[in-house]
Amino acid sequence: MAATTRSLREHGYADLTIEKIGDEFEKSQSLIYHHYDGKDDLVIATLEFVLDRYSEQVTAQSVEDPKHSLETVVTQFVDDDWESRLAATLFELRAQAIHDEAYREHFTRSDDVFEQYLADLIADGIERGVFKECDPNATAATLVTLINGATVRRASTRDDAWLEGVRSEIDAYLEARVYRDEE
Amino acid sequence: MAATTRSLREHGYADLTIEKIGDEFEKSQSLIYHHYDGKDDLVIATLEFVLDRYSEQVTAQSVEDPKHSLETVVTQFVDDDWESRLAATLFELRAQAIHDEAYREHFTRSDDVFEQYLADLIADGIERGVFKECDPNATAATLVTLINGATVRRASTRDDAWLEGVRSEIDAYLEARVYRDEE
Repeated sequence: MAATTRSLREHGYADLTIEKIGDEFEKSQSLIYHHYDGKDDLVIATLEFVLDRYSEQVTAQSVEDPKHSLETVVTQFVDDDWESRLAATLFELRAQAIHDEAYREHFTRSDDVFEQYLADLIADGIERGVFKECDPNATAATLVTLINGATVRRASTRDDAWLEGVRSEIDAYLEARVYRDEE
Repeated sequence: MAATTRSLREHGYADLTIEKIGDEFEKSQSLIYHHYDGKDDLVIATLEFVLDRYSEQVTAQSVEDPKHSLETVVTQFVDDDWESRLAATLFELRAQAIHDEAYREHFTRSDDVFEQYLADLIADGIERGVFKECDPNATAATLVTLINGATVRRASTRDDAWLEGVRSEIDAYLEARVYRDEE
């Protein structure tokens, strides 16, 4: 899994071969061929592994401040610092879903896991009285869609003049719909 | 251009060949080879042609009701009726931008044209006093990012349970940030 992640980071998806993954692997390459049917089989197993770890991590963590956690997620994905290279690789992998059912399955689950995490955060904030009575699922779906859109624009255009405006409008949206005014 | 559009609709991008475009073309195939260097050259010329026509169309039309025009755009792209097949083809073409500078150039311009159209609509509404004093560019950038995100999710997942929530949150966002309360 680690060898696949390193290879994806270095070569991107299109130029990735199972041999290149093997070069990053400290044990025998034949072990890879024994367990995986090809590059896509290995890439999907890696994506699923990373998603499971992410899912366990966010489920296990205790939330101290739902507003801070929500802002952290937005900053993580809609920000100048977010690696264009990583955005491009994720976009390229997602594009495989058009023709490959296994990728489609993965990205359906990946959006669901991410959306459920955000919906739980928002429901938590409502329960604690720090968020307004909004619809956690609809709000989470909107944030996931915005983050998908930002990833795609980051990866497919030369321009990032849009980024700052989008970031400030997400904050304004959350202020209007989710955060309670602080006294 | 029409032959390329028809071929893209029928075969998608991956399975498209210049021969298939030729089959849709009523004149001699050699005319295509004479003018275009290959499939991508022809696809990009078609995308540019469609974008220019769209740009002329929206510039020429006189806006009667900025709110109605804005809602029409959102409904057009974030709606059950929007063809999944078209979303998939647009997503697939955009994915070419990762490795091909000409596609990157096109989709940068395409997002810009679309964003400028929406920003002009919003500025128009502010001027007429039907929209609040918001930032037209930031608001337009957010809508374009949402529409990109919705297109990608539509094209890469099995699920569209998110769609209804996103649609209602876009309306709520526009109510909160853009539309003036009607008396």
